[in-house]
Amino acid sequence: MTKNEEIIRQIILDWAASISSNDREGILKDHSPNILMYDFPSVVQGLNAYDETWDFFFREKIKEIHFDVRELEVTASDLVAFATCLIRCEGTSAGVVELRLTTGLKKIDNKWIITHEHHSVPTTDDKLIDEKSEAK
Amino acid sequence: MTKNEEIIRQIILDWAASISSNDREGILKDHSPNILMYDFPSVVQGLNAYDETWDFFFREKIKEIHFDVRELEVTASDLVAFATCLIRCEGTSAGVVELRLTTGLKKIDNKWIITHEHHSVPTTDDKLIDEKSEAK
Repeated sequence: MTKNEEIIRQIILDWAASISSNDREGILKDHSPNILMYDFPSVVQGLNAYDETWDFFFREKIKEIHFDVRELEVTASDLVAFATCLIRCEGTSAGVVELRLTTGLKKIDNKWIITHEHHSVPTTDDKLIDEKSEAK
Repeated sequence: MTKNEEIIRQIILDWAASISSNDREGILKDHSPNILMYDFPSVVQGLNAYDETWDFFFREKIKEIHFDVRELEVTASDLVAFATCLIRCEGTSAGVVELRLTTGLKKIDNKWIITHEHHSVPTTDDKLIDEKSEAK
């Protein structure tokens, strides 16, 4: 793993830990003012809008949040990087949610900044495919 | 726009055009043998598995496919890049589907290769949020 990949890996783990501990400053600290997020709502642009989505998230908190990162893989050059991982989120009214996350980063003034996040849940039709396969 | 960004932009537009014209070779041609896709099903790894997802897609075709890319933005260094865009997909049994796509790329042997794709549809609960906002 390169030094850049190590740094980015830690940024994502720290971000996830900040979510688990409801540390809003920690959640935001490595993000670009112009961050583009695909999540819920569909397209979110800018750090204020990004911050507001966490209002919604924490409003749904019903017990301790666990936001656990698995299968984290980072691909980095010296200036641009992206990372992929799966996330298991527990503690909100939605129950246990398995997410997929892609993160895009740029090194600006020698510091890695998250400029993009794409969060999604598998479509519920996945289940239909599984059922179709099993029925064959 | 840098030369790398131009090349990647064209790769993504060509890929989308290949989908619109059901050109399976065109769809696959710039992809890594180890591609990691988050889509439908949830996690797809490897070019064969990636290719099979297009079987499913084209089985659902009911009329001419339009797979149109909008708001394409590319962030590239000399060796690693990622791109974001929205896609409007028409022509399958699912009706008109608005997708979000993040693509991750690496330059290997002086050629840009797609190593990651994250496709998702906005969660249907988006509508609930909109309704809640309107009701305020």
